[in-house]
Amino acid sequence: MFDLVISKGTIVTSSSVTVGDVGITDGKIAALGQDLEGKHSIDARGKLVTPGAVDTHVHLEMPIGNYVSSDDFYSGTRAAAFGGTTSIIDFVESRADQTFLEALRERQAQASARSVIDYGLHMTIGPDDMNKLDQVPGIMEEGCGSFKLYMAYGLRLMDDQLYKAFRTVSRAGGLPVVHAENWDIICAMIEENLAEGRTSPHWHPRSRPEEFEAEAAGRVIQIAHQAGSRVHIFHVSCPQVVEEISSARAKGRAVTAETCPQYLLLTQDLYDREGVEGALPVCSPPLRSDLSRRELWQALGSGLFDTISTDHCPFCREEKGADLSAFNKIPGGVPSMEIRFSALYSEGVLKELITLSEWIDLCCTMPASLFGLKNKGEIALGKDADLVVFDPDVEWTVSPGELQETAGWTPYDGMVLKGRPSVTISRGDILVEEGVFKAEKGRGRFLKTAP
Amino acid sequence: MFDLVISKGTIVTSSSVTVGDVGITDGKIAALGQDLEGKHSIDARGKLVTPGAVDTHVHLEMPIGNYVSSDDFYSGTRAAAFGGTTSIIDFVESRADQTFLEALRERQAQASARSVIDYGLHMTIGPDDMNKLDQVPGIMEEGCGSFKLYMAYGLRLMDDQLYKAFRTVSRAGGLPVVHAENWDIICAMIEENLAEGRTSPHWHPRSRPEEFEAEAAGRVIQIAHQAGSRVHIFHVSCPQVVEEISSARAKGRAVTAETCPQYLLLTQDLYDREGVEGALPVCSPPLRSDLSRRELWQALGSGLFDTISTDHCPFCREEKGADLSAFNKIPGGVPSMEIRFSALYSEGVLKELITLSEWIDLCCTMPASLFGLKNKGEIALGKDADLVVFDPDVEWTVSPGELQETAGWTPYDGMVLKGRPSVTISRGDILVEEGVFKAEKGRGRFLKTAP
Amino acid sequence: MFDLVISKGTIVTSSSVTVGDVGITDGKIAALGQDLEGKHSIDARGKLVTPGAVDTHVHLEMPIGNYVSSDDFYSGTRAAAFGGTTSIIDFVESRADQTFLEALRERQAQASARSVIDYGLHMTIGPDDMNKLDQVPGIMEEGCGSFKLYMAYGLRLMDDQLYKAFRTVSRAGGLPVVHAENWDIICAMIEENLAEGRTSPHWHPRSRPEEFEAEAAGRVIQIAHQAGSRVHIFHVSCPQVVEEISSARAKGRAVTAETCPQYLLLTQDLYDREGVEGALPVCSPPLRSDLSRRELWQALGSGLFDTISTDHCPFCREEKGADLSAFNKIPGGVPSMEIRFSALYSEGVLKELITLSEWIDLCCTMPASLFGLKNKGEIALGKDADLVVFDPDVEWTVSPGELQETAGWTPYDGMVLKGRPSVTISRGDILVEEGVFKAEKGRGRFLKTAP
Amino acid sequence: MFDLVISKGTIVTSSSVTVGDVGITDGKIAALGQDLEGKHSIDARGKLVTPGAVDTHVHLEMPIGNYVSSDDFYSGTRAAAFGGTTSIIDFVESRADQTFLEALRERQAQASARSVIDYGLHMTIGPDDMNKLDQVPGIMEEGCGSFKLYMAYGLRLMDDQLYKAFRTVSRAGGLPVVHAENWDIICAMIEENLAEGRTSPHWHPRSRPEEFEAEAAGRVIQIAHQAGSRVHIFHVSCPQVVEEISSARAKGRAVTAETCPQYLLLTQDLYDREGVEGALPVCSPPLRSDLSRRELWQALGSGLFDTISTDHCPFCREEKGADLSAFNKIPGGVPSMEIRFSALYSEGVLKELITLSEWIDLCCTMPASLFGLKNKGEIALGKDADLVVFDPDVEWTVSPGELQETAGWTPYDGMVLKGRPSVTISRGDILVEEGVFKAEKGRGRFLKTAP
Repeated sequence: MFDLVISKGTIVTSSSVTVGDVGITDGKIAALGQDLEGKHSIDARGKLVTPGAVDTHVHLEMPIGNYVSSDDFYSGTRAAAFGGTTSIIDFVESRADQTFLEALRERQAQASARSVIDYGLHMTIGPDDMNKLDQVPGIMEEGCGSFKLYMAYGLRLMDDQLYKAFRTVSRAGGLPVVHAENWDIICAMIEENLAEGRTSPHWHPRSRPEEFEAEAAGRVIQIAHQAGSRVHIFHVSCPQVVEEISSARAKGRAVTAETCPQYLLLTQDLYDREGVEGALPVCSPPLRSDLSRRELWQALGSGLFDTISTDHCPFCREEKGADLSAFNKIPGGVPSMEIRFSALYSEGVLKELITLSEWIDLCCTMPASLFGLKNKGEIALGKDADLVVFDPDVEWTVSPGELQETAGWTPYDGMVLKGRPSVTISRGDILVEEGVFKAEKGRGRFLKTAP
Repeated sequence: MFDLVISKGTIVTSSSVTVGDVGITDGKIAALGQDLEGKHSIDARGKLVTPGAVDTHVHLEMPIGNYVSSDDFYSGTRAAAFGGTTSIIDFVESRADQTFLEALRERQAQASARSVIDYGLHMTIGPDDMNKLDQVPGIMEEGCGSFKLYMAYGLRLMDDQLYKAFRTVSRAGGLPVVHAENWDIICAMIEENLAEGRTSPHWHPRSRPEEFEAEAAGRVIQIAHQAGSRVHIFHVSCPQVVEEISSARAKGRAVTAETCPQYLLLTQDLYDREGVEGALPVCSPPLRSDLSRRELWQALGSGLFDTISTDHCPFCREEKGADLSAFNKIPGGVPSMEIRFSALYSEGVLKELITLSEWIDLCCTMPASLFGLKNKGEIALGKDADLVVFDPDVEWTVSPGELQETAGWTPYDGMVLKGRPSVTISRGDILVEEGVFKAEKGRGRFLKTAP
Repeated sequence: MFDLVISKGTIVTSSSVTVGDVGITDGKIAALGQDLEGKHSIDARGKLVTPGAVDTHVHLEMPIGNYVSSDDFYSGTRAAAFGGTTSIIDFVESRADQTFLEALRERQAQASARSVIDYGLHMTIGPDDMNKLDQVPGIMEEGCGSFKLYMAYGLRLMDDQLYKAFRTVSRAGGLPVVHAENWDIICAMIEENLAEGRTSPHWHPRSRPEEFEAEAAGRVIQIAHQAGSRVHIFHVSCPQVVEEISSARAKGRAVTAETCPQYLLLTQDLYDREGVEGALPVCSPPLRSDLSRRELWQALGSGLFDTISTDHCPFCREEKGADLSAFNKIPGGVPSMEIRFSALYSEGVLKELITLSEWIDLCCTMPASLFGLKNKGEIALGKDADLVVFDPDVEWTVSPGELQETAGWTPYDGMVLKGRPSVTISRGDILVEEGVFKAEKGRGRFLKTAP
Repeated sequence: MFDLVISKGTIVTSSSVTVGDVGITDGKIAALGQDLEGKHSIDARGKLVTPGAVDTHVHLEMPIGNYVSSDDFYSGTRAAAFGGTTSIIDFVESRADQTFLEALRERQAQASARSVIDYGLHMTIGPDDMNKLDQVPGIMEEGCGSFKLYMAYGLRLMDDQLYKAFRTVSRAGGLPVVHAENWDIICAMIEENLAEGRTSPHWHPRSRPEEFEAEAAGRVIQIAHQAGSRVHIFHVSCPQVVEEISSARAKGRAVTAETCPQYLLLTQDLYDREGVEGALPVCSPPLRSDLSRRELWQALGSGLFDTISTDHCPFCREEKGADLSAFNKIPGGVPSMEIRFSALYSEGVLKELITLSEWIDLCCTMPASLFGLKNKGEIALGKDADLVVFDPDVEWTVSPGELQETAGWTPYDGMVLKGRPSVTISRGDILVEEGVFKAEKGRGRFLKTAP
């Protein structure tokens, strides 16, 4: 007698599609079989049963300048749960006066108090943290196994700092994850465009050329290689970056890569909308041309990406539109956390750009595997009972009102999708069932990452 | 009460590693759980439980000139079973006076009478079969979903024939698989080398340059693309081919690739051995340098290969040595079918060049998935109970006497491996248990391929 | 006292632009200086004085199927002289029953009887000439230092034949020149297009994809390299071929390349004209898109081409239009011989895509140097007095009536050019002066090529 | 009656090799012909007559830290003259309190007082000169048409500064010349090596990996392209950089490149010599492996370089050895100015790696043409009579005592060369004749560069 049985669904894993029951006991997957009996059961006939999705790149309660990203650990993870995501990895940044460990504890406190799903944390290594590199092995033991390195923004590392960070992280067995853009060129382009009076969001992507996202990716892969490290490239927005990655792989470089729903579903035309509408989809790297978007799908179908995450970092309309005098004053980031899993099914699987198992692999299994969330991301005996009962038939139109996210707008507004989670389960607990939220704030636990 | 339970083993799939029981009923995997009860059971404590391995490239009872490859469908599949392989895909060639279907029936009769494991068949399209292209859709319905195209030997297709074959196969939804070498250049090099008195096997790899294996692969990928077809490249022997494939993928070409144990474990130095010893390892593409071999592992670790198969095609020592007057008179092919699964574990997993799950993916899951063997290649509810209980601790030395293959020699002779199947199960039947063969000749069934 | 002095012109060479006099005695350039005195003199004030242009790729009196190219050695070289060209290299093909030498003598007789300028001859090695390879060193001594190898048409060599030809020519010190297209793919594409009822010239370029011109070029460069030979690629039509060549050079391959005026000035839109008008510009490789054309200029400006020749091979309107039932029945070839030198000045130099000295280098110096026409192609002491007085100011409109070519049409019809030869001199003889032809038929001499 | 006639020599230009006389009047080449009469004459029978060589990359009286490069404008240009070089381009750096013009005047005063040959000056744009970019058009009018941008050392520009410099220089019509290395990575590698106790010059090349010289070159080409600028890459030391350049050219990027004698003739083994001997050849980029060296020659033969200059920047043995405690304390730079022209003849032409005309093109014509020294670099009417009578037969052994350079050592010590200037002429003045120096200090004039 299992605690809970999900019965007669189509069980979709990253390597198989079969029909049967999933038996859950003590928050774990205890059995896969037929006609299992449980204290409670969910009838999944005609539905897909998938692993809970894993989003390894989100920014909740993230301060950027004067603003803070609109979703906190409660509203964000609640929205994630509605979207079928049961694990996330967010970020820690340490202040100059903090050790990595102090910063981790602070961030854990913030997250654990509010999160409804399990979460891990990437440790950020900024330019002011070079003297903390000796803390890397220690912080890994505390469960931060991946390290965020920025090539842009105030946190930007120079090439020598990247080299040293790679060297240290690699020797400790950690995984470096990188935001790859050429910040100097971007700054020069922004300055040039603003000086010419080109201030609207139309000029946002035109200040961040695809060539220099690719250049930065190519360079950082080579720096990582020189340092004997592997590297994971975040939020690849265009095919030129894919070419750099692919060519590096052919030379034996150890590189993995993610892309995000916004680059697969949206294009830079959105920046040409009037007023704040054009400002809303500002994010970095920026949305690209429709040709780039279509080639990105092709790369995805060819297996050139390892994971799909969101870089979820929304700001509310007021913040986005607070200062429209120059496109570089708009806080960057879009919300994708709640639609990712559904959107990849609807736009990817149903349009035959990826298979059912590739969908699971990209959204669940590989993200968990790459970051060493060893009980997550797959339906297998003994794994955490993080599961989604996914209704493949329901057709719905994306709109702010349909979503739980707090930004109050969504760049996917009006998009018609087919398929949506009807039940989301975390460690055997039903978080959401047919649109009703059933979980407690703060039930989420810290996940150690061990890449 | 299951027919058979494999209990308490470490269940390794392409996406997870967990501990538990596998319950089998009616030849199918009926449950995964703890403490399952069965009429019979196998204690797998301390052992790995894996899917039966799938070898999608073997040549049994294969006539080449005056010789026939030494393993027939009985001895070959028996050896396969000892090695943990429970499905193979072999080849059909049609005579000029035969339809594809007649040739298929003939080959099926041959195979079904003797095979102890399940088998599929690639249909060969040779230069004399251009007028049979209209039979492609029909033969696919009969279960031949993949088509072998040669760029070398007597069966060599010219580029226009390749184009037409790709066009036809692609429109019918089939998968073309290609032997890619530049046959004209090889012929010219052989002629030149023989004319200069360079007749020993030392000159075999030197007549088949890596550059022209790469050239042929690059060309055929482009021809396939022009024809709107995907393509699977067989037996990639060297990193230059990997670069062509990788660069094609980055451009959105739909290409998959296999390599073989011989290219990962052996090198061209073997051709410098005296007398028949130097002739034994002759195969095509040839073994390459040690540098190439090491870079091939690196490519494998970077995910650049989809499958590992064997191109198993041994000839006995007498045939190999029948005419040593010129290296091109030596019948080409080596045996790898029985050691593949163990060797990849020992040399790949234990040396940390690939992970446990990658081992399964390359040897079991992807081969089955790529060729549409939908009940094979993974441990999941409802799949055929093709399973291996693999002892990870046993250390053994490869020698002809240790193997069931009939060639009487092995190029891996003397190699010390760790790990070996202790039980092999096909559709719930125990084929081999602790070195004892328990299966009936002819129990193997034809598998429809549906890529 | 020189025989002839060209005074006060702007002397343009491949490496300098200076003002002065050229003194000619005994058909040679005897002096460069100021205020030279001559028995005769030409006032070149305000004009350019350039070397006579060298066209290393023309087909005069060339039989193709039932037709013969419209210019014979008289009308063709006469037109060349009007256009500023004072040396050409045409082709010899040997019949099965002929030695190379017999064929050379026959072709020399034909050319010497009619040519008004000096000429060299490439020896063609066709598939039926493999048994004549031992004649290569001998024919080189007779002055055929370059060898034409076709990868297309009836003369197409297979890769092994290419290898052997390269090997032989290279060892003899000759220069192989190659028509690079993938003939098999072209045949398959033609067959497919015709079968679909796509018979108009619109489908001519669409049956000869850029990718497969590039593929063939890449392949033949590699075959040449394998054979230890350098190679010269004829009539590069598009940037994809340039990329292959450029990438081969970076790997140390010895490769040179030519393009032709038609690929720099015309585009495939011409094939969409009605009736015979669409048939007239049929040539191979075909005209390409405007984008390709513009990128070709860029490559030219970046120094990626060594020579510009014409592949001059016109047919008259009746022959071009004789059978319009299918685009592949149209005899291929366009006339460019007379406009090449002027057109490159007008469209290249004046539009600042190439410099004055690059114009001379591409049209005169490098063609002569590459093929070892050691007294041609440059203005230097002791060289043959092959000179052009070029009026840079005259503006004229290309039309059949303006030209001396005999085709009766020109694909450049209506193009307005600036600059045109006003005097053409060969070995000190004035061939053309202000539009008046002054030379004798048959005065042209055979030029030994010695690359 | 010419002022001076050089009679009966073999006149070698970048596009021809002929025999005859050169007549000189008023410091200009007044005639090329036979049997010219002059007030004075030099018998050049059996000798080569070449343009005076042009070295566009030298550092005379160059302060680096506590040291100053050993050759000042007198000893340096005197040595150059002995070596057949009649024009150089050195550098100006402006102090923070100076305008470009003030710095130029200061440097001109220094050079004009001492130089015995004509000289131009590259203007350096350092990180402190960003506010001087508006002075670029003005300084070009004063004759500084090229601008040196460093990616390394204290003068290193960040990518945004490079972009802005390219933008400005390009709009003004100037030519940016770049020292391309990844300075951050070099710094990190030096730090790492020193921290590990790897302090000997052996670690100098190992701290400046070829990959990151290539990375920097690839990056800066792309930045230039983004800014709409062409770019000239200085001192390419290895084939990986050539590949970046070649691939950029194939994409239509406007890039030119130089290499230097030290990279063609010397290898990194020299760093393994004992004591100061290992320190002497320290220069940046460093000497590379012998394989790299040989591939560099191949690239040169394939036409992938535009110019050969020296980066002449020697320090005396005392300065080189002043602090051997760490390889990065050794002042960098080697002397090559005096041997360049002879060495390229002996090691390039005589070994058939380049032709006679390519030698002239690389050492004389293209350097002059690229930087717009319009009266230099070629033997043509009206050009400055900068000429060398070069004895191709004399064999000599390089040693400090054989040279006029003041460093007191040479990395080419012991090298046996064939061929050496016997007379060097600048604007008609004999500077050196048969080893005797005949020129006045300070006769050299400033050359305006106008690329």
